[in-house]
Amino acid sequence: MSAEELRYEADGLSMNGALFRPSGGAGKAPGVLVFPEAFGLSGHAIERAGRLAAELGYVALACDLWGERRQVTSLPEVMPMLQALMGDVGGMQARLTTPLQLLQAQAGVDAGRIAAIGFCFGGTCAFELATCSDIKAAIGFHSGLKVPSLAAGGAAGIRGSKILAMIGQDDPAIPPETRAEFIRVLSEAGVDWQMTLYGGVVHSFTNPEADAAGMPAVLRYDARADRRSWRQMTGLLAEAFG
Amino acid sequence: MSAEELRYEADGLSMNGALFRPSGGAGKAPGVLVFPEAFGLSGHAIERAGRLAAELGYVALACDLWGERRQVTSLPEVMPMLQALMGDVGGMQARLTTPLQLLQAQAGVDAGRIAAIGFCFGGTCAFELATCSDIKAAIGFHSGLKVPSLAAGGAAGIRGSKILAMIGQDDPAIPPETRAEFIRVLSEAGVDWQMTLYGGVVHSFTNPEADAAGMPAVLRYDARADRRSWRQMTGLLAEAFG
Repeated sequence: MSAEELRYEADGLSMNGALFRPSGGAGKAPGVLVFPEAFGLSGHAIERAGRLAAELGYVALACDLWGERRQVTSLPEVMPMLQALMGDVGGMQARLTTPLQLLQAQAGVDAGRIAAIGFCFGGTCAFELATCSDIKAAIGFHSGLKVPSLAAGGAAGIRGSKILAMIGQDDPAIPPETRAEFIRVLSEAGVDWQMTLYGGVVHSFTNPEADAAGMPAVLRYDARADRRSWRQMTGLLAEAFG
Repeated sequence: MSAEELRYEADGLSMNGALFRPSGGAGKAPGVLVFPEAFGLSGHAIERAGRLAAELGYVALACDLWGERRQVTSLPEVMPMLQALMGDVGGMQARLTTPLQLLQAQAGVDAGRIAAIGFCFGGTCAFELATCSDIKAAIGFHSGLKVPSLAAGGAAGIRGSKILAMIGQDDPAIPPETRAEFIRVLSEAGVDWQMTLYGGVVHSFTNPEADAAGMPAVLRYDARADRRSWRQMTGLLAEAFG
Protein backbone atom coordinates (compact mmCIF):
# COMPACT_ATOMS: atom_id res chain seq x y z
CA MET A 1 0.00 0.00 0.00
CA SER A 2 1.69 3.18 -1.13
CA ALA A 3 0.51 6.71 -0.58
CA GLU A 4 0.01 9.21 -3.33
CA GLU A 5 0.81 12.83 -2.55
CA LEU A 6 -2.21 15.07 -2.90
CA ARG A 7 -1.28 18.73 -2.99
CA TYR A 8 -3.79 21.51 -2.39
CA GLU A 9 -4.02 25.06 -1.15
CA ALA A 10 -6.08 25.75 1.95
CA ASP A 11 -6.23 28.77 4.21
CA GLY A 12 -3.20 30.22 2.44
CA LEU A 13 -1.02 27.18 3.03
CA SER A 14 0.50 24.67 0.63
CA MET A 15 -0.91 21.42 1.90
CA ASN A 16 0.44 17.99 1.07
CA GLY A 17 -1.92 15.15 1.93
CA ALA A 18 -1.41 11.41 1.64
CA LEU A 19 -4.01 9.55 -0.40
CA PHE A 20 -4.52 5.80 -0.22
CA ARG A 21 -6.69 3.70 -2.50
CA PRO A 22 -7.87 0.16 -1.90
CA SER A 23 -6.31 -2.37 -4.22
CA GLY A 24 -8.46 -3.69 -7.05
CA GLY A 25 -12.20 -3.42 -7.09
CA ALA A 26 -14.32 -1.68 -9.67
CA GLY A 27 -16.98 0.83 -8.80
CA LYS A 28 -16.86 3.64 -6.31
CA ALA A 29 -15.71 3.30 -2.73
CA PRO A 30 -16.60 5.49 0.25
CA GLY A 31 -13.98 8.03 1.25
CA VAL A 32 -12.53 8.82 4.65
CA LEU A 33 -10.64 11.93 5.69
CA VAL A 34 -8.03 11.45 8.41
CA PHE A 35 -7.09 14.47 10.49
CA PRO A 36 -3.86 14.21 12.46
CA GLU A 37 -2.96 15.21 15.99
CA ALA A 38 -2.26 18.87 16.66
CA PHE A 39 1.43 18.42 15.95
CA GLY A 40 0.72 17.98 12.25
CA LEU A 41 0.58 15.26 9.63
CA SER A 42 2.70 12.43 10.99
CA GLY A 43 3.38 8.80 10.34
CA HIS A 44 0.60 7.91 12.75
CA ALA A 45 -2.22 9.50 10.74
CA ILE A 46 -0.70 8.33 7.46
CA GLU A 47 -0.51 4.76 8.73
CA ARG A 48 -4.16 4.88 9.76
CA ALA A 49 -5.20 6.17 6.35
CA GLY A 50 -3.31 3.27 4.81
CA ARG A 51 -5.19 0.83 7.00
CA LEU A 52 -8.55 2.36 6.08
CA ALA A 53 -7.74 1.55 2.46
CA ALA A 54 -6.02 -1.80 2.93
CA GLU A 55 -8.23 -3.28 5.64
CA LEU A 56 -11.57 -1.65 4.96
CA GLY A 57 -11.55 -0.81 1.28
CA TYR A 58 -12.06 2.93 1.58
CA VAL A 59 -10.25 5.70 -0.26
CA ALA A 60 -8.53 7.55 2.55
CA LEU A 61 -6.88 10.95 2.63
CA ALA A 62 -4.59 11.87 5.51
CA CYS A 63 -4.76 15.65 5.67
CA ASP A 64 -2.02 18.15 6.19
CA LEU A 65 -2.60 20.61 9.01
CA TRP A 66 0.19 23.20 8.98
CA GLY A 67 1.36 23.10 5.34
CA GLU A 68 4.16 21.11 3.65
CA ARG A 69 3.54 18.42 6.25
CA ARG A 70 5.16 20.56 8.86
CA GLN A 71 5.39 18.84 12.20
CA VAL A 72 5.54 20.96 15.31
CA THR A 73 7.54 19.23 18.00
CA SER A 74 6.74 20.96 21.25
CA LEU A 75 3.55 21.72 23.15
CA PRO A 76 4.59 25.33 23.91
CA GLU A 77 5.03 25.89 20.20
CA VAL A 78 1.81 24.28 19.05
CA MET A 79 -0.56 25.69 21.67
CA PRO A 80 -0.64 29.28 20.37
CA MET A 81 -0.94 27.95 16.81
CA LEU A 82 -3.96 25.91 17.88
CA GLN A 83 -5.51 28.82 19.74
CA ALA A 84 -5.17 31.02 16.69
CA LEU A 85 -6.64 28.41 14.39
CA MET A 86 -9.57 27.66 16.70
CA GLY A 87 -10.26 31.38 16.88
CA ASP A 88 -10.51 31.63 13.09
CA VAL A 89 -13.40 29.36 12.23
CA GLY A 90 -13.33 30.30 8.55
CA GLY A 91 -9.67 29.41 8.25
CA MET A 92 -10.10 26.20 10.19
CA GLN A 93 -13.05 25.13 8.09
CA ALA A 94 -11.08 25.86 4.91
CA ARG A 95 -8.45 23.36 6.05
CA LEU A 96 -11.23 20.77 6.39
CA THR A 97 -13.59 21.43 3.51
CA THR A 98 -10.86 21.77 0.89
CA PRO A 99 -9.57 18.21 1.32
CA LEU A 100 -13.18 17.04 1.61
CA GLN A 101 -13.96 18.45 -1.83
CA LEU A 102 -10.73 17.03 -3.22
CA LEU A 103 -11.51 13.59 -1.90
CA GLN A 104 -15.04 13.77 -3.28
CA ALA A 105 -13.63 14.65 -6.69
CA GLN A 106 -11.25 11.70 -6.84
CA ALA A 107 -11.93 8.98 -9.36
CA GLY A 108 -13.30 5.91 -7.65
CA VAL A 109 -14.78 7.82 -4.73
CA ASP A 110 -18.49 7.88 -3.98
CA ALA A 111 -18.87 11.59 -3.22
CA GLY A 112 -22.06 10.95 -1.28
CA ARG A 113 -20.39 8.60 1.18
CA ILE A 114 -17.62 10.42 3.00
CA ALA A 115 -16.68 10.31 6.66
CA ALA A 116 -13.97 11.97 8.74
CA ILE A 117 -11.90 10.58 11.57
CA GLY A 118 -9.33 12.35 13.64
CA PHE A 119 -6.94 12.07 16.53
CA CYS A 120 -6.67 14.64 19.33
CA PHE A 121 -7.17 18.02 17.62
CA GLY A 122 -7.90 16.02 14.46
CA GLY A 123 -11.03 14.76 16.19
CA THR A 124 -12.00 18.36 16.84
CA CYS A 125 -11.49 18.91 13.11
CA ALA A 126 -13.76 15.98 12.23
CA PHE A 127 -16.52 17.33 14.48
CA GLU A 128 -16.09 20.86 13.14
CA LEU A 129 -16.39 19.51 9.60
CA ALA A 130 -19.65 17.80 10.57
CA THR A 131 -21.14 21.23 11.33
CA CYS A 132 -20.50 22.55 7.81
CA SER A 133 -20.76 19.58 5.45
CA ASP A 134 -22.78 16.48 4.67
CA ILE A 135 -20.28 13.88 5.83
CA LYS A 136 -21.92 10.69 7.04
CA ALA A 137 -19.89 10.30 10.22
CA ALA A 138 -17.34 12.17 12.31
CA ILE A 139 -15.25 10.05 14.64
CA GLY A 140 -12.76 11.32 17.18
CA PHE A 141 -10.09 9.34 19.01
CA HIS A 142 -8.91 11.05 22.23
CA SER A 143 -10.42 14.01 20.49
CA GLY A 144 -10.65 17.54 21.72
CA LEU A 145 -14.30 18.27 22.44
CA LYS A 146 -14.11 22.05 22.42
CA VAL A 147 -15.31 22.44 18.86
CA PRO A 148 -15.47 26.05 17.67
CA SER A 149 -18.82 25.90 15.87
CA LEU A 150 -20.41 23.83 18.62
CA ALA A 151 -19.30 26.35 21.21
CA ALA A 152 -20.81 29.06 19.02
CA GLY A 153 -24.24 27.42 18.90
CA GLY A 154 -23.72 25.67 15.58
CA ALA A 155 -24.72 22.13 16.53
CA ALA A 156 -27.86 22.49 14.44
CA GLY A 157 -25.55 22.63 11.44
CA ILE A 158 -24.90 18.92 11.86
CA ARG A 159 -27.12 17.46 9.17
CA GLY A 160 -27.04 13.72 9.50
CA SER A 161 -23.44 13.10 10.53
CA LYS A 162 -23.16 10.36 13.11
CA ILE A 163 -20.87 11.54 15.89
CA LEU A 164 -18.62 9.21 17.88
CA ALA A 165 -16.09 10.35 20.47
CA MET A 166 -13.80 7.85 22.18
CA ILE A 167 -12.05 9.18 25.26
CA GLY A 168 -9.72 7.89 27.95
CA GLN A 169 -11.44 8.31 31.30
CA ASP A 170 -8.21 9.64 32.83
CA ASP A 171 -7.33 12.01 29.99
CA PRO A 172 -6.51 15.28 31.76
CA ALA A 173 -6.95 17.21 28.51
CA ILE A 174 -10.59 16.17 28.15
CA PRO A 175 -12.07 16.24 31.65
CA PRO A 176 -15.63 15.16 32.53
CA GLU A 177 -16.90 18.75 32.48
CA THR A 178 -15.78 19.16 28.87
CA ARG A 179 -17.42 15.89 27.92
CA ALA A 180 -20.64 16.93 29.64
CA GLU A 181 -20.76 20.21 27.74
CA PHE A 182 -20.15 18.43 24.41
CA ILE A 183 -22.94 15.99 25.26
CA ARG A 184 -25.29 18.77 26.31
CA VAL A 185 -24.86 20.74 23.10
CA LEU A 186 -25.25 17.71 20.83
CA SER A 187 -28.22 16.38 22.76
CA GLU A 188 -30.05 19.69 22.65
CA ALA A 189 -29.60 19.75 18.89
CA GLY A 190 -30.89 16.20 18.53
CA VAL A 191 -27.65 14.98 16.98
CA ASP A 192 -26.96 11.24 16.68
CA TRP A 193 -23.99 10.95 19.01
CA GLN A 194 -22.17 8.27 20.98
CA MET A 195 -19.31 8.48 23.42
CA THR A 196 -17.16 5.65 24.69
CA LEU A 197 -14.98 5.98 27.78
CA TYR A 198 -12.04 3.70 28.49
CA GLY A 199 -10.98 3.05 32.08
CA GLY A 200 -7.34 3.59 33.00
CA VAL A 201 -6.59 5.33 29.71
CA VAL A 202 -5.20 8.82 29.08
CA HIS A 203 -4.54 10.92 25.95
CA SER A 204 -3.03 9.70 22.66
CA PHE A 205 -4.00 6.09 23.31
CA THR A 206 -3.90 5.25 19.60
CA ASN A 207 -0.40 6.57 19.00
CA PRO A 208 2.65 4.44 19.87
CA GLU A 209 4.79 7.53 19.30
CA ALA A 210 3.16 9.17 22.32
CA ASP A 211 5.31 7.26 24.79
CA ALA A 212 8.41 9.06 23.55
CA ALA A 213 7.19 12.21 25.26
CA GLY A 214 7.90 10.63 28.64
CA MET A 215 4.65 11.93 30.14
CA PRO A 216 2.76 8.69 30.83
CA ALA A 217 0.17 10.33 33.08
CA VAL A 218 -0.92 12.51 30.16
CA LEU A 219 0.18 10.87 26.90
CA ARG A 220 0.34 7.10 26.70
CA TYR A 221 -0.23 4.49 24.05
CA ASP A 222 -2.77 1.85 25.07
CA ALA A 223 -2.87 -1.14 22.72
CA ARG A 224 -6.19 -2.37 24.09
CA ALA A 225 -7.99 0.95 23.73
CA ASP A 226 -6.36 1.37 20.33
CA ARG A 227 -7.82 -1.92 19.10
CA ARG A 228 -11.20 -1.30 20.69
CA SER A 229 -11.59 2.18 19.31
CA TRP A 230 -10.55 1.07 15.83
CA ARG A 231 -13.12 -1.71 16.02
CA GLN A 232 -15.85 0.70 17.07
CA MET A 233 -14.89 3.05 14.26
CA THR A 234 -15.02 0.18 11.79
CA GLY A 235 -18.56 -0.68 12.86
CA LEU A 236 -19.80 2.88 12.67
CA LEU A 237 -18.26 3.51 9.25
CA ALA A 238 -19.94 0.39 7.89
CA GLU A 239 -23.24 1.56 9.39
CA ALA A 240 -22.84 5.12 8.09
CA PHE A 241 -21.95 4.03 4.57
CA GLY A 242 -24.81 1.53 4.51
CA MET B 1 -32.62 -22.93 16.67
CA SER B 2 -34.58 -24.46 19.50
CA ALA B 3 -34.04 -23.94 23.20
CA GLU B 4 -33.48 -26.75 25.62
CA GLU B 5 -34.93 -26.32 29.09
CA LEU B 6 -32.27 -26.37 31.77
CA ARG B 7 -33.70 -26.84 35.24
CA TYR B 8 -31.75 -26.05 38.38
CA GLU B 9 -32.23 -25.03 41.97
CA ALA B 10 -30.81 -21.72 43.13
CA ASP B 11 -31.49 -19.66 46.22
CA GLY B 12 -34.37 -21.97 47.10
CA LEU B 13 -36.15 -21.49 43.79
CA SER B 14 -36.88 -23.92 40.96
CA MET B 15 -35.23 -22.25 38.04
CA ASN B 16 -35.90 -23.03 34.41
CA GLY B 17 -33.32 -21.65 32.01
CA ALA B 18 -33.20 -21.76 28.22
CA LEU B 19 -30.06 -23.27 26.70
CA PHE B 20 -29.04 -22.76 23.08
CA ARG B 21 -26.25 -24.54 21.25
CA PRO B 22 -24.66 -23.54 17.98
CA SER B 23 -25.45 -25.89 15.13
CA GLY B 24 -22.71 -28.29 14.08
CA GLY B 25 -19.10 -27.78 14.93
CA ALA B 26 -16.85 -30.11 16.84
CA GLY B 27 -14.77 -29.03 19.79
CA LYS B 28 -15.71 -26.78 22.64
CA ALA B 29 -17.33 -23.38 22.28
CA PRO B 30 -17.27 -20.47 24.70
CA GLY B 31 -20.36 -20.05 26.84
CA VAL B 32 -22.44 -16.95 27.54
CA LEU B 33 -24.92 -16.41 30.36
CA VAL B 34 -27.82 -14.09 29.58
CA PHE B 35 -29.51 -12.39 32.51
CA PRO B 36 -32.96 -10.91 31.83
CA GLU B 37 -34.53 -7.64 32.82
CA ALA B 38 -35.88 -7.32 36.35
CA PHE B 39 -39.31 -8.55 35.30
CA GLY B 40 -37.93 -12.06 34.83
CA LEU B 41 -36.98 -14.43 32.03
CA SER B 42 -38.87 -13.22 28.98
CA GLY B 43 -38.89 -13.74 25.24
CA HIS B 44 -36.42 -10.88 24.91
CA ALA B 45 -33.58 -12.54 26.84
CA ILE B 46 -34.37 -15.92 25.30
CA GLU B 47 -34.22 -14.46 21.80
CA ARG B 48 -30.83 -12.91 22.54
CA ALA B 49 -29.47 -16.21 23.84
CA GLY B 50 -30.65 -17.81 20.62
CA ARG B 51 -28.79 -15.21 18.59
CA LEU B 52 -25.60 -15.72 20.60
CA ALA B 53 -25.69 -19.35 19.52
CA ALA B 54 -26.95 -18.95 15.96
CA GLU B 55 -25.00 -15.83 14.95
CA LEU B 56 -21.88 -16.10 17.06
CA GLY B 57 -21.44 -19.81 17.73
CA TYR B 58 -21.53 -19.67 21.53
CA VAL B 59 -23.43 -21.94 23.89
CA ALA B 60 -25.83 -19.54 25.56
CA LEU B 61 -27.96 -19.93 28.66
CA ALA B 62 -30.79 -17.50 29.33
CA CYS B 63 -31.21 -17.57 33.10
CA ASP B 64 -34.34 -17.63 35.15
CA LEU B 65 -34.58 -14.93 37.78
CA TRP B 66 -37.69 -15.53 39.91
CA GLY B 67 -38.22 -19.29 39.48
CA GLU B 68 -40.40 -21.25 37.02
CA ARG B 69 -39.83 -18.42 34.55
CA ARG B 70 -42.15 -16.24 36.54
CA GLN B 71 -42.64 -12.85 34.94
CA VAL B 72 -43.59 -9.96 37.13
CA THR B 73 -45.70 -7.50 35.22
CA SER B 74 -45.70 -4.28 37.22
CA LEU B 75 -43.02 -2.00 38.53
CA PRO B 76 -44.67 -1.64 41.98
CA GLU B 77 -44.61 -5.41 42.31
CA VAL B 78 -41.03 -5.95 41.17
CA MET B 79 -39.35 -3.10 43.03
CA PRO B 80 -39.58 -4.60 46.54
CA MET B 81 -38.51 -7.98 45.12
CA LEU B 82 -35.45 -6.33 43.62
CA GLN B 83 -34.66 -4.47 46.81
CA ALA B 84 -34.84 -7.66 48.80
CA LEU B 85 -32.64 -9.54 46.36
CA MET B 86 -30.04 -6.76 46.18
CA GLY B 87 -29.95 -6.73 49.97
CA ASP B 88 -29.15 -10.45 50.09
CA VAL B 89 -25.85 -10.72 48.26
CA GLY B 90 -25.48 -14.41 49.04
CA GLY B 91 -28.87 -15.21 47.56
CA MET B 92 -28.29 -13.02 44.54
CA GLN B 93 -24.90 -14.58 43.86
CA ALA B 94 -26.43 -18.05 44.13
CA ARG B 95 -28.80 -17.16 41.30
CA LEU B 96 -25.75 -16.21 39.20
CA THR B 97 -23.10 -18.76 40.09
CA THR B 98 -25.41 -21.77 39.88
CA PRO B 99 -26.21 -21.30 36.19
CA LEU B 100 -22.55 -20.41 35.61
CA GLN B 101 -21.45 -23.77 36.99
CA LEU B 102 -24.17 -25.54 35.03
CA LEU B 103 -23.11 -23.89 31.81
CA GLN B 104 -19.47 -24.73 32.47
CA ALA B 105 -20.43 -28.37 32.99
CA GLN B 106 -22.30 -28.67 29.69
CA ALA B 107 -20.82 -30.87 27.01
CA GLY B 108 -19.31 -28.79 24.25
CA VAL B 109 -18.62 -25.80 26.51
CA ASP B 110 -15.11 -24.50 27.17
CA ALA B 111 -15.42 -23.95 30.93
CA GLY B 112 -12.52 -21.50 30.88
CA ARG B 113 -14.18 -19.19 28.40
CA ILE B 114 -17.46 -17.92 29.84
CA ALA B 115 -18.93 -14.44 29.75
CA ALA B 116 -22.15 -12.91 31.03
CA ILE B 117 -24.41 -10.35 29.46
CA GLY B 118 -27.52 -8.81 30.89
CA PHE B 119 -30.26 -6.29 30.36
CA CYS B 120 -31.36 -3.73 32.96
CA PHE B 121 -31.10 -5.58 36.31
CA GLY B 122 -29.60 -8.46 34.32
CA GLY B 123 -26.63 -6.19 33.65
CA THR B 124 -26.32 -5.64 37.37
CA CYS B 125 -26.30 -9.43 37.69
CA ALA B 126 -23.51 -9.78 35.11
CA PHE B 127 -21.38 -7.23 36.97
CA GLU B 128 -22.11 -8.84 40.34
CA LEU B 129 -21.05 -12.20 38.90
CA ALA B 130 -17.78 -10.65 37.77
CA THR B 131 -16.95 -9.90 41.41
CA CYS B 132 -17.20 -13.54 42.47
CA SER B 133 -16.13 -15.64 39.47
CA ASP B 134 -13.58 -15.90 36.71
CA ILE B 135 -15.82 -14.97 33.79
CA LYS B 136 -13.93 -13.31 30.95
CA ALA B 137 -16.35 -10.45 30.38
CA ALA B 138 -19.45 -8.90 31.92
CA ILE B 139 -21.56 -6.77 29.59
CA GLY B 140 -24.58 -4.73 30.57
CA PHE B 141 -27.18 -3.19 28.27
CA HIS B 142 -29.09 -0.31 29.90
CA SER B 143 -27.79 -1.99 32.99
CA GLY B 144 -28.29 -0.98 36.55
CA LEU B 145 -24.95 0.24 37.89
CA LYS B 146 -25.70 -0.08 41.60
CA VAL B 147 -24.01 -3.43 42.01
CA PRO B 148 -24.21 -4.82 45.56
CA SER B 149 -20.62 -6.08 45.85
CA LEU B 150 -19.20 -2.99 44.17
CA ALA B 151 -21.07 -0.77 46.59
CA ALA B 152 -19.65 -2.88 49.42
CA GLY B 153 -16.05 -2.38 48.31
CA GLY B 154 -15.76 -5.63 46.38
CA ALA B 155 -14.42 -4.30 43.09
CA ALA B 156 -11.06 -5.90 43.84
CA GLY B 157 -12.86 -9.21 43.49
CA ILE B 158 -13.00 -8.66 39.75
CA ARG B 159 -10.18 -10.86 38.52
CA GLY B 160 -9.77 -10.32 34.84
CA SER B 161 -13.35 -9.81 33.73
CA LYS B 162 -13.63 -7.13 31.08
CA ILE B 163 -16.49 -4.80 32.00
CA LEU B 164 -18.65 -3.02 29.44
CA ALA B 165 -21.70 -0.91 30.28
CA MET B 166 -23.84 0.60 27.52
CA ILE B 167 -26.23 3.28 28.68
CA GLY B 168 -28.75 5.67 27.17
CA GLN B 169 -27.66 9.20 27.98
CA ASP B 170 -31.24 10.15 28.84
CA ASP B 171 -32.01 7.05 30.93
CA PRO B 172 -33.60 8.46 34.11
CA ALA B 173 -32.93 5.20 35.94
CA ILE B 174 -29.16 5.45 35.46
CA PRO B 175 -28.28 9.11 35.90
CA PRO B 176 -24.79 10.59 35.45
CA GLU B 177 -24.07 10.49 39.20
CA THR B 178 -24.67 6.74 39.28
CA ARG B 179 -22.42 6.27 36.26
CA ALA B 180 -19.71 8.38 37.87
CA GLU B 181 -19.78 6.30 41.04
CA PHE B 182 -19.58 3.05 39.07
CA ILE B 183 -16.63 4.46 37.13
CA ARG B 184 -14.91 5.66 40.29
CA VAL B 185 -15.11 2.30 42.02
CA LEU B 186 -13.93 0.31 39.00
CA SER B 187 -11.13 2.76 38.24
CA GLU B 188 -9.82 2.71 41.80
CA ALA B 189 -9.67 -1.09 41.63
CA GLY B 190 -7.81 -1.01 38.30
CA VAL B 191 -10.56 -2.94 36.53
CA ASP B 192 -10.62 -3.09 32.72
CA TRP B 193 -13.85 -1.21 32.05
CA GLN B 194 -15.54 0.62 29.21
CA MET B 195 -18.75 2.60 29.06
CA THR B 196 -20.63 3.71 25.98
CA LEU B 197 -23.28 6.40 26.09
CA TYR B 198 -25.94 6.83 23.41
CA GLY B 199 -27.43 10.25 22.77
CA GLY B 200 -31.22 10.57 22.77
CA VAL B 201 -31.68 7.10 24.21
CA VAL B 202 -33.48 6.05 27.41
CA HIS B 203 -33.93 2.72 29.25
CA SER B 204 -34.70 -0.67 27.66
CA PHE B 205 -33.32 0.36 24.29
CA THR B 206 -32.71 -3.26 23.27
CA ASN B 207 -36.22 -4.47 24.01
CA PRO B 208 -39.03 -3.93 21.46
CA GLU B 209 -41.49 -5.02 24.15
CA ALA B 210 -40.61 -1.90 26.15
CA ASP B 211 -42.82 0.34 24.05
CA ALA B 212 -45.92 -1.48 25.27
CA ALA B 213 -45.46 0.20 28.66
CA GLY B 214 -46.46 3.51 27.12
CA MET B 215 -43.72 5.40 28.98
CA PRO B 216 -41.49 6.58 26.09
CA ALA B 217 -39.57 9.09 28.22
CA VAL B 218 -38.38 6.23 30.43
CA LEU B 219 -38.67 2.95 28.50
CA ARG B 220 -38.24 2.99 24.73
CA TYR B 221 -36.87 0.63 22.15
CA ASP B 222 -34.16 2.18 19.97
CA ALA B 223 -33.25 0.09 16.95
CA ARG B 224 -30.05 2.02 16.32
CA ALA B 225 -28.72 1.71 19.86
CA ASP B 226 -29.84 -1.92 19.88
CA ARG B 227 -27.72 -2.69 16.80
CA ARG B 228 -24.77 -0.66 18.01
CA SER B 229 -24.70 -2.20 21.46
CA TRP B 230 -25.00 -5.71 20.05
CA ARG B 231 -22.10 -4.95 17.72
CA GLN B 232 -19.96 -3.67 20.57
CA MET B 233 -20.79 -6.74 22.63
CA THR B 234 -19.85 -8.96 19.71
CA GLY B 235 -16.45 -7.32 19.47
CA LEU B 236 -15.72 -7.57 23.17
CA LEU B 237 -16.79 -11.22 23.39
CA ALA B 238 -14.45 -12.09 20.52
CA GLU B 239 -11.66 -10.18 22.26
CA ALA B 240 -12.36 -11.78 25.65
CA PHE B 241 -12.52 -15.31 24.28
CA GLY B 242 -9.34 -14.78 22.28
